[in-house]
Amino acid sequence: MPAPAITLLTDFGTADGYVAEMKGVLCTLAPGVSLIDVTHDIAPQDITAARLVLARCWRRFPVGTVHLVVVDPGVGTQRAAIAVESEGRFLVGPDNGVLSPALFALDARVVQLPVPSAAAATFHGRDVFAPAAAALAEGAALADLGEPFFTPVRLRTPQPRREADGSLHGEVLTIDRFGNVITNLMTREPSGAVHVAGRVARLVRTYGDAAPGELVALVGSSGFVEIAVREGNAAGALGIARREGVVLRGVG
Amino acid sequence: MPAPAITLLTDFGTADGYVAEMKGVLCTLAPGVSLIDVTHDIAPQDITAARLVLARCWRRFPVGTVHLVVVDPGVGTQRAAIAVESEGRFLVGPDNGVLSPALFALDARVVQLPVPSAAAATFHGRDVFAPAAAALAEGAALADLGEPFFTPVRLRTPQPRREADGSLHGEVLTIDRFGNVITNLMTREPSGAVHVAGRVARLVRTYGDAAPGELVALVGSSGFVEIAVREGNAAGALGIARREGVVLRGVG
Amino acid sequence: MPAPAITLLTDFGTADGYVAEMKGVLCTLAPGVSLIDVTHDIAPQDITAARLVLARCWRRFPVGTVHLVVVDPGVGTQRAAIAVESEGRFLVGPDNGVLSPALFALDARVVQLPVPSAAAATFHGRDVFAPAAAALAEGAALADLGEPFFTPVRLRTPQPRREADGSLHGEVLTIDRFGNVITNLMTREPSGAVHVAGRVARLVRTYGDAAPGELVALVGSSGFVEIAVREGNAAGALGIARREGVVLRGVG
Repeated sequence: MPAPAITLLTDFGTADGYVAEMKGVLCTLAPGVSLIDVTHDIAPQDITAARLVLARCWRRFPVGTVHLVVVDPGVGTQRAAIAVESEGRFLVGPDNGVLSPALFALDARVVQLPVPSAAAATFHGRDVFAPAAAALAEGAALADLGEPFFTPVRLRTPQPRREADGSLHGEVLTIDRFGNVITNLMTREPSGAVHVAGRVARLVRTYGDAAPGELVALVGSSGFVEIAVREGNAAGALGIARREGVVLRGVG
Repeated sequence: MPAPAITLLTDFGTADGYVAEMKGVLCTLAPGVSLIDVTHDIAPQDITAARLVLARCWRRFPVGTVHLVVVDPGVGTQRAAIAVESEGRFLVGPDNGVLSPALFALDARVVQLPVPSAAAATFHGRDVFAPAAAALAEGAALADLGEPFFTPVRLRTPQPRREADGSLHGEVLTIDRFGNVITNLMTREPSGAVHVAGRVARLVRTYGDAAPGELVALVGSSGFVEIAVREGNAAGALGIARREGVVLRGVG
Repeated sequence: MPAPAITLLTDFGTADGYVAEMKGVLCTLAPGVSLIDVTHDIAPQDITAARLVLARCWRRFPVGTVHLVVVDPGVGTQRAAIAVESEGRFLVGPDNGVLSPALFALDARVVQLPVPSAAAATFHGRDVFAPAAAALAEGAALADLGEPFFTPVRLRTPQPRREADGSLHGEVLTIDRFGNVITNLMTREPSGAVHVAGRVARLVRTYGDAAPGELVALVGSSGFVEIAVREGNAAGALGIARREGVVLRGVG
C-alpha cells in the first residue's frame, strides 16, 4: 500500500519560496511522502475562494490523504491552529472557516494544535501546520496532535431562497478561469432560464445544445448552475462579480 | 521498476480546483502513481499552444508514461474522447488535434473512450480522461479502454516554403516567456539572417556570439529558428505576434 | 529509505514546456525519483530573486536532496555550468551567483560540468543541468561529474550598517506576494521602529499586536525585519521597491 499523500492549498504563490520551505519541512519529517499541489494561486487572504476549492476536491482524494491548507490572514493573532479528521481524510490549517467543507461531515473530529514558542509568528504554515501534516502522513493519530476542539469556525455556502412564484433566488459564488459564472443555484431539471445582470440564459444540458457564442446556463460539474458562453467568456460578457444576484425561473 | 507517471497538461489554471479534482481521481484510481505537472497555464482553449508544448515534451518522458491532456473547448459537444498509444507512451484527451504530436508516429494507435452517462457534461477531464489515464497507469491495455478510432483530428505545424531565390518563408509559431520568437524555420547551417517585422536578425550559433541587447536569430532547443535579444525581450522589441511572417535569407 | 528528491527552481514559467522537457529528462535518467516544484515563477533572468528563494529553502530539504536551479541569462556564453555539494545537499545550475546560499557553507565543494557538443546552446537546463541532477539523484559522486572548480561566483545579500547614533541602515531585499516588504535588517529585540518611505513602522512581535490596517514592522520567518500591514498590502501603501533604504531606530 503506497504511503498517503499530502496535498498543499495556499495563497502563497510560489515565487517567494514560502511553499518550498513547507515542502522541505514535509520531505524532512515525512520521508518518501508524495506532495501534490492543489493550488498556490488563491488570491491573497481569500478564505472564500480557498474554501470553495477545498469543497471541490477534498473527498476526491483517497482515504488517508492529508490536506494542508494555509490561507491564513489571522496568523499571529488569537485564531486557533487546528487539525481535522473527516471521512477518513485529514486536514490541517487555521481555524478561520477555510476547512469548513470537512467540518460538516457527521464524523468530523477536530483538535487544536499547540503553537511552539519557536514558531515564527508570521509563518505557521512552515512551523505549525506542515509538521502536523507530516505527523499525520507518518501515521500519528489525530488525538496525538492536540486537545479536542469543539468550536471551529464553520462557514456555509449561502443558500438560495424559493419565492412564492416558484423562482429561485441565489447569487454568484465564484467565477472561474474560463469566465464561467458559478452560482449557488441547484436544479434537478435543466429547464427554465437564469436571469442574470439583465440578461436571460436558458438552461441547456450541455455545450452541444448551445450555439457558439450563446449565453446559456447549465448544471456544472459540482452540481451548481453555471452561466457560460460556449467557446467564450460569460463573466466578461456580463460584467459580473462574486455575490451578485441571479434568479432561476421556470419556462412557463 | 517504478510505477509509471501520469503527466498533466491543461488550460485550467490551478485556482479553481479543477486540476485538484482530477488529481484526486488519479490518486484514487491509480494509488501510488506519480503525478507530474506539465503545465496548467495554457491560455484558455488555446489548442495550438498546448499542442506545441506537448510536441516539445511527450517523448522526453520514459516509455510507459501517461500524458493526460485536457484543453477542451468542445467538451459536451460531439467531439470524441480518445486515448492513444504511440512510441510506448500513452496519451489521453479530446479529439481536437491537441494530441497530434503523438498521432504522426508510425505505430500510433487510437481508441475512442466511451462517455458514461454520469459524466459531467462540462468536465470530461475529471469523469472521462482522468479515469482512462489512471487505468493505463495501472496497466490496462489500450484496447481495453474503447473501440479503435481511425480518424483522429491531426493538426500539423505549418511548413515554411522555399522560394526560387533560395529564401525560406515561414511564420511565427509562438512566443515564449522570455520574449523569444519561435518560428517554423529550420536550417542546418546557422548562416544568413532572418527578416522579421522590418528588422534583420543575423543567425548566430549561441548567445555568446551576440552583444547584450543585440537582435539575433539562432537555432533553438527544439530545432526551430528563434529570434532573440541577448538578455532582452525580442517579441517586445519587435511588437510581433503569432502567425506573422518571417523570411530566412542567405548571406550572399 | 526513499529515493532522494530533485527540486526545480526556474524562471521558465510552465506554459512554454521547457520545465516539462526537463522533467522528462529527469524521469528518464532517474526513474522513480520524486520531482518537487520549488517555483517556476521567478521573473525572467532575476538572479537575485532566485537566490533569495534558494536561501530560504535549500537547507529545509533532507540530506541527499538535489536542487536543480536554472535562472540562466548567460546560457550560451562563457559562464560555467556547476554542481555543488554543501551540507549534504546537492545543487546544480549556472555559475552566475544563483547558487550562492550553498556556496558559503564551510564544506561546500564545486565541480564544473562539461557541456556536451550536442547540448542546445539555449537550453543547458535540459541538456546539461538536468542530466547532472539526475546522476546525483542516482547516487553519482560529485567528483564523477566534473573537475574541481575553485572560483564560483558568490553573491552576498547586502549587509546593513550601524551608525554612531545606534541606528541600523539597510535596504529592501524583496517584496512578497502579500506586499510584505522584506529588508536586510536583523534585530534580536523587537523594539524601536523602522523608518521607511517617509513613514514610521513600530516593531511588534506578531500581527496580533497590530490593529487591522496598521503599518508595522516585525521579525519575519527568515529572521529579517519585514514591514507589513495587518490584513493589507504594505508595499502598495508605501509605493516602495527593491533596493530602497530603510532605517531601524531605537525607541528612546
